[in-house]
Amino acid sequence: MTATPKPATAATAPTDRTRIRRIAENADYQRDTLHAVLDAAYVCHVAFVDDKGTHCIPTACWREGEYLYIHGSNGGRLIKLLAKGTQACVTVTHIDGLVLARSAFHHSMNYRSAMVYGQFEKVDDKAAALDTFMRHLAPGREQQARPGSSKELAATTVMRISLAEAACKVRSGGPNDDADDLHLPVWAGVLPLASLRMAPVPDALCSVPAPDYVQNWAN
Amino acid sequence: MTATPKPATAATAPTDRTRIRRIAENADYQRDTLHAVLDAAYVCHVAFVDDKGTHCIPTACWREGEYLYIHGSNGGRLIKLLAKGTQACVTVTHIDGLVLARSAFHHSMNYRSAMVYGQFEKVDDKAAALDTFMRHLAPGREQQARPGSSKELAATTVMRISLAEAACKVRSGGPNDDADDLHLPVWAGVLPLASLRMAPVPDALCSVPAPDYVQNWAN
Repeated sequence: MTATPKPATAATAPTDRTRIRRIAENADYQRDTLHAVLDAAYVCHVAFVDDKGTHCIPTACWREGEYLYIHGSNGGRLIKLLAKGTQACVTVTHIDGLVLARSAFHHSMNYRSAMVYGQFEKVDDKAAALDTFMRHLAPGREQQARPGSSKELAATTVMRISLAEAACKVRSGGPNDDADDLHLPVWAGVLPLASLRMAPVPDALCSVPAPDYVQNWAN
Repeated sequence: MTATPKPATAATAPTDRTRIRRIAENADYQRDTLHAVLDAAYVCHVAFVDDKGTHCIPTACWREGEYLYIHGSNGGRLIKLLAKGTQACVTVTHIDGLVLARSAFHHSMNYRSAMVYGQFEKVDDKAAALDTFMRHLAPGREQQARPGSSKELAATTVMRISLAEAACKVRSGGPNDDADDLHLPVWAGVLPLASLRMAPVPDALCSVPAPDYVQNWAN
């Protein structure tokens, strides 16, 4: 349970909710790790409670500074509840591979995950925030696509949650077998998984040349 | 709170919690869709509440029949809470691409997601359930890896949640622009994303020939 906060912006001290107890050596409280895990995500899962129970809703997200942003229709359940100041837990998870150990028990996965606890707040300058979102998805497109009309903007809520109470958990590398199992004639290693960008698919009615972020999209 | 699985594979009537209101045309209550979305996942997000708040924890999952299974250490927060019969919401999400419309407002994502509501119950035959999990990850490996010892099995809890109260939401295809925007000189289409299986990485100490599920892993 080390993870002592480093001087400057390095790390954040875990709270009672973000201190990782299970396989604690995979805990990572570094701000750089948190930013990288969030920036690699297009979607987060938001958990919250209403009078019908506990919910876990996937929604698009983007980070700017020390906040994670989401947006949605004013009328949606997620936005309506979060706007009331409901406590939320936001989780982002990337799966990087299956870890095959010689024993069934030591099988694992490689992953990068982040959890953020807190309350969302409404963002006043919605147009600027949505421009940042667009830049995150497709740099430059915020100056190409037709901007939101006043009616469209009015129907949309942008919210953000502070990254103050957050922690990551990260596993990488090969299996950690017991010493007694290393001699077993069982294949061991990692079966990697990666989220890859595939060839763009233009809309049937689109005759506009592909901009840079489309030409450079595919891995 | 009906949601009794129909005899055939048809569809499940939505409950008050699973009826999709936002972009309802993307709702999918077919059992086949639910099974396919869950079977494509290695990980789900489990939301639940304890005295410290609402949590959203990623964990490995697998489906068998009309149940979704998870496992974990007896001492972990997730397992301890769920074993008390805590209400949970389990969500699986696959992101298939960014949908670039001519207007900022109509940007979207292609995705397949599933939500399951209910309570987890402990599974008695842990060894059989974990074998099924292993078969899901690497068919045949359940007969190769060293099986869990009685001590390892005793430290592990396997739980499952019924798929009776569940729904999917799925979007695919290109952008849905307003007719008035179709003439705009803005590139429109889909930037696809795919979770791909990359070349296996054998453990440094492994000299065992790769079995079929390793040789056939990469896309």
